[in-house]
Amino acid sequence: MTRKPALAVVGATGAAGAVMLQILSQHADVWGEIRLLSSPRSAGRKLAVRGEECEVSALAEEALDGIDVAVFLAPREVAERWAPIAAAKGAVAVDTSAAFRLEADVPLVVPEVNPHSVRVRPRGIVASPHDTTLALLPAVGALHAAFGLRELVVSTYQAASGAGRDAVSALRAQLSLVAGTELGAGPGDVRRAVGDDLGPFPAPLALNVVPFAGALQEDGWSSEELGLRAETRKILDLPGLPVTATCVRVPVVTTHSLAVHARFENEVTVERAHEVLATSPGVVLYDSPEAGDFPTPADVVGTDPTWVGRVRRSPDDPAALSLFVCGDNLRKGAALNSAQIAEAVAAELGSGR
Amino acid sequence: MTRKPALAVVGATGAAGAVMLQILSQHADVWGEIRLLSSPRSAGRKLAVRGEECEVSALAEEALDGIDVAVFLAPREVAERWAPIAAAKGAVAVDTSAAFRLEADVPLVVPEVNPHSVRVRPRGIVASPHDTTLALLPAVGALHAAFGLRELVVSTYQAASGAGRDAVSALRAQLSLVAGTELGAGPGDVRRAVGDDLGPFPAPLALNVVPFAGALQEDGWSSEELGLRAETRKILDLPGLPVTATCVRVPVVTTHSLAVHARFENEVTVERAHEVLATSPGVVLYDSPEAGDFPTPADVVGTDPTWVGRVRRSPDDPAALSLFVCGDNLRKGAALNSAQIAEAVAAELGSGR
Repeated sequence: MTRKPALAVVGATGAAGAVMLQILSQHADVWGEIRLLSSPRSAGRKLAVRGEECEVSALAEEALDGIDVAVFLAPREVAERWAPIAAAKGAVAVDTSAAFRLEADVPLVVPEVNPHSVRVRPRGIVASPHDTTLALLPAVGALHAAFGLRELVVSTYQAASGAGRDAVSALRAQLSLVAGTELGAGPGDVRRAVGDDLGPFPAPLALNVVPFAGALQEDGWSSEELGLRAETRKILDLPGLPVTATCVRVPVVTTHSLAVHARFENEVTVERAHEVLATSPGVVLYDSPEAGDFPTPADVVGTDPTWVGRVRRSPDDPAALSLFVCGDNLRKGAALNSAQIAEAVAAELGSGR
Repeated sequence: MTRKPALAVVGATGAAGAVMLQILSQHADVWGEIRLLSSPRSAGRKLAVRGEECEVSALAEEALDGIDVAVFLAPREVAERWAPIAAAKGAVAVDTSAAFRLEADVPLVVPEVNPHSVRVRPRGIVASPHDTTLALLPAVGALHAAFGLRELVVSTYQAASGAGRDAVSALRAQLSLVAGTELGAGPGDVRRAVGDDLGPFPAPLALNVVPFAGALQEDGWSSEELGLRAETRKILDLPGLPVTATCVRVPVVTTHSLAVHARFENEVTVERAHEVLATSPGVVLYDSPEAGDFPTPADVVGTDPTWVGRVRRSPDDPAALSLFVCGDNLRKGAALNSAQIAEAVAAELGSGR
């Protein structure tokens, strides 16, 4: 390929799309043509990318002509229908939805952890993990490579924006109702104040935490909990790894956090774990307990890496570590990881054919 | 004892004291005299208990004359000094601070879990656990009795009021600053808006979570994390139990939540766990995933029990359960548990001597 590859961004007008346009502007030399696509409803809008206005077109077969890589930042139904069409037209489809993540013949890729997997894509589709998995995997993948992972127990502190823009609007509306009041100290008073304005959540999120994210699946587990388990196993190529997750939504706008308990094959020390994390791509170690340094979502939001702090060795098991990780669910958690996958494909196309 | 026992409430004017006065009014027939004590600064205030105004006196040796049970809802330093004095004067001291919890010759009591322990008090002092332990133990104690606990991994979602009234004021002030804004989506914008108004927290709490509670202790662990471990071991009389906790503060006013992963000696089922929890004192089972029923702090606040939902069996280990528990840190977490201990002592005094 002598020309630079052509990229289509499907879902350019959404929240993840906005972050993708920033990233594309920062990495301006990777792509030749960049085509912005959306639902017919949003077509015709003009968005800035690489310093130029670019008109959004409606997603259609002919809109994919000549495209080398098509990144889908779109709902699952859109990806289910259109990613195979893009692949059939010769593009590599990079999908951020849940549509293909657990399909055996679709690689699920975190470029810092399993970059080799991107090259084996029999259906022409590469999947990007869920945002919660993406906050976790750069750190846990690095520790696995060093110490050999045996078990994970994870509790999440997930931000509202992981559930979409309406979710953020609902959280902000709820916060306006409870701010300046004495609510939150009496039984049910927050629920009464918020009324039906729950957004996509099953309970109020302001002055509350909601221990359910996603849809109900078998045996009381939520789709987010089982997805985190299945995706972690697939990315690490550890199909029998015990993974237990409890997924909880918290009143944070953007950036997911996870409290992680990890058991390894071999003994670990905090010092060795620090060395591994400090030198791993996509990870920032921010862990000086004496200085009060640990990551929080309000400090991490807007940044690319997974931030890791509170690294502690179990007093009961010298092969177990606890840590706290934060990752921006709209950057690495959606747009950035798919941009990284797309760039890996672009590099391969440039060198290979 | 033919007369009803006399109770002193030390720290009657604080947040937990206010809840204690409600509880004493509800259980009006237990006590004879009720004496309200405080620091000299708050002495002279009049508070309502059992429908009558009661003047608060300054804590002093003579203020403990004739007292049978003295409940300390006061800072650690006050309890360290005054609980032994109360005991020397013939009272049983019930302390809610951390001063004596881990002393070998002071029982640490959750009346639903280890009621027998209250009778063995060589120093005349009985300790009440930390609020986070108290949200956890009624549920975990019941499951231990049924299935035999082997390991606990816990992540907390702790409310601001666990850090005191100033903490709640700081959270409310921060919420007023961020409500109605677009803050929380850009790097550091919440921290800049909040400025130095952090209250007792090491980072902003509004639109954030703070993965550090308590003081730094050895090897990066916090006092709250090591305390939860040590207290759980002592109450359950399992000195070697592996317990790993990550303690995180969330922007909730009152009611602590915990995501719990528990491994048992024997196989468990969700059905058997439901039976155990539904019939355990101090526990409400609220767990109908199909109906969207699970506990949240905003719904639990103001109630006495530990609420349990999201009970799931590990897909990887038939002897492991995950669950989510919520408990009001000002009721069971402070005033109620010490009131229950005091009443157990009162019953013993009434029957025994």
